[in-house]
Amino acid sequence: MDLLQNIRIVLVNPLFGGNLGSICRAMNNNGITDLAVVDPRPDMDMDEARKFSCNARAQLEAREEYATLAEAVADRTVVAGASARTGFYRDTAYSPREFAPIGLESAKDHKIALVFGREDKGLFNEELALCTHIIQIPSSELYTSLNLSHAVYVCCYEMFNAAGVFQPAEETAPEADNDLRERMFAVWREMMIETEFVHDQKLEHMMMGLRRIFNRGKLTSPDCKILMGLAKQSLWVADQWKKEKHD
Amino acid sequence: MDLLQNIRIVLVNPLFGGNLGSICRAMNNNGITDLAVVDPRPDMDMDEARKFSCNARAQLEAREEYATLAEAVADRTVVAGASARTGFYRDTAYSPREFAPIGLESAKDHKIALVFGREDKGLFNEELALCTHIIQIPSSELYTSLNLSHAVYVCCYEMFNAAGVFQPAEETAPEADNDLRERMFAVWREMMIETEFVHDQKLEHMMMGLRRIFNRGKLTSPDCKILMGLAKQSLWVADQWKKEKHD
Repeated sequence: MDLLQNIRIVLVNPLFGGNLGSICRAMNNNGITDLAVVDPRPDMDMDEARKFSCNARAQLEAREEYATLAEAVADRTVVAGASARTGFYRDTAYSPREFAPIGLESAKDHKIALVFGREDKGLFNEELALCTHIIQIPSSELYTSLNLSHAVYVCCYEMFNAAGVFQPAEETAPEADNDLRERMFAVWREMMIETEFVHDQKLEHMMMGLRRIFNRGKLTSPDCKILMGLAKQSLWVADQWKKEKHD
Repeated sequence: MDLLQNIRIVLVNPLFGGNLGSICRAMNNNGITDLAVVDPRPDMDMDEARKFSCNARAQLEAREEYATLAEAVADRTVVAGASARTGFYRDTAYSPREFAPIGLESAKDHKIALVFGREDKGLFNEELALCTHIIQIPSSELYTSLNLSHAVYVCCYEMFNAAGVFQPAEETAPEADNDLRERMFAVWREMMIETEFVHDQKLEHMMMGLRRIFNRGKLTSPDCKILMGLAKQSLWVADQWKKEKHD
C-alpha cells in the first residue's frame, strides 16, 4: 500500500498558471498524484501551467476542481493548512517535518489533505478553521514569504521522505581490507624511495601523513587498486630513468 | 557569526530567468545571500528574473558572475554539486539532509559552495570533478527530474534547518492544571444533567468519553475557560427554560 496515494494537495484559488504547473511537477517528484483546485480562476494562464508542468502534464490534466474548500476536503480526515502569517491560533503550528509522521499515520487508513492558499493572501481564517492542523514552513526573517510552488514542494518532500520509500544510490564496491591496504602502502613507500621523493629520515613521517590522508574516508578495493597501479607505474618510470642514466 | 553567510549558491550556465529569480527568493527565504552565476547566457530573460525574484530583487542585482566554475569556487573548501543522474561515482552521493551538517561544520571556519547545473543537462562530469561532495535529492521514480529552483530551494532549506537559527512560533498559553480541568469537567457534568442530555446510568460513561476527547491533546488554561464558559451558558439556558416551564 502506498501511503502517498492517500495525500491530496489542495490549492485554494491560486493566481498563476506557472505555479500550478510547477506544483504538478513538484508533487510527482515526491510520488504524490492527487491534486484539487478550489475556486479556479477562469483567466488562469493554462499555457503557462502546461509549460511549467514539464513531464507532469498528465498530472495537470488529472486535477479535480471544486467550488469550495469544504467540498475538496469533505472525505479527508487530517486536513493540514499551510500558513506563513502569525496570529489566529497559528502559534500551534507544526513544521512540515513535525507534521509528516502525524499525517502519514492517518494516511495508513484514511485520506488526508494538505491545503495551500492564494499566492498573495494565503488562506483566509474561515478556510484555516476547516483545517485540523496548521503547517508553518521554517523561513528566514530576511524574507518569510515563500513562492507557492516552493511551499508545496517542501511539504511534499517531507511527506515523501517520511514515507521512507526512497532508496538512495549506494556505494556497491567492497571496502578494502587491511591486507590490500598494506600492500598498497608498501608500493607507495617503495615509490617514495625510488623516485627519491624523500630521504630516509623523513620516510616514516611522510608514510604516516599518507596513511592519514587515505584513511580519512573509507577506501574501497577499486580505490586501493587505482592507487596501487599509479604507484607501480611511477616505480616503473623510476626504474627506466635509472637504466637510462647508466647507459 | 552566521554560518549561512559562508554558503555560496553557484548556478552553472542556467537557462531561464524565471528560475534565476525564483532562486534569489528561495535563497533569502533560507537566510542565504551569496549567489554566483557561472557562464551567464547573454540572452537570459532578465525581466522574468526580476519578476520571479519578488522582494529578493536586491539579491538578484547582487549576484556575482564568473566565466568558469573553477573561478566561482576557487576560495571554497567544501564544494557540493547537485546531480540527479547516476553513474560516474554518483553512488557516493549524500542527501541534502545528510550533507547539511557536513557543510555547516566547514562553514564555521571556511567558505563553502553548493553547485547546480543547467536545467536541461545538469553538471558535466568535468564540473562534478571539481566538487568535494555530490548531493542527490530524494525523488520519486514517478518523475525524478526537479525544477532547478526547487532543487536549490530544498538544499538551502536543509542548510537553514540544520543551522538551527529558526525559532518556530510556540504556544504561549500555560497548560491547564488538574484543578482547573476538574472544575471544567464538573460544569460539563452538571450541564449534561440539567439539559437532560443523558440519563443517570449513562452519565459516567459519557463523562469518560468527554475526558478522552478533551485530554487527547494538551489543554491550555484559555481552552478550559472557553469550555467552562460554554457549559455555564448552557446551564443558564437550561435554568431559564425550567423557570419558563413553571411560569
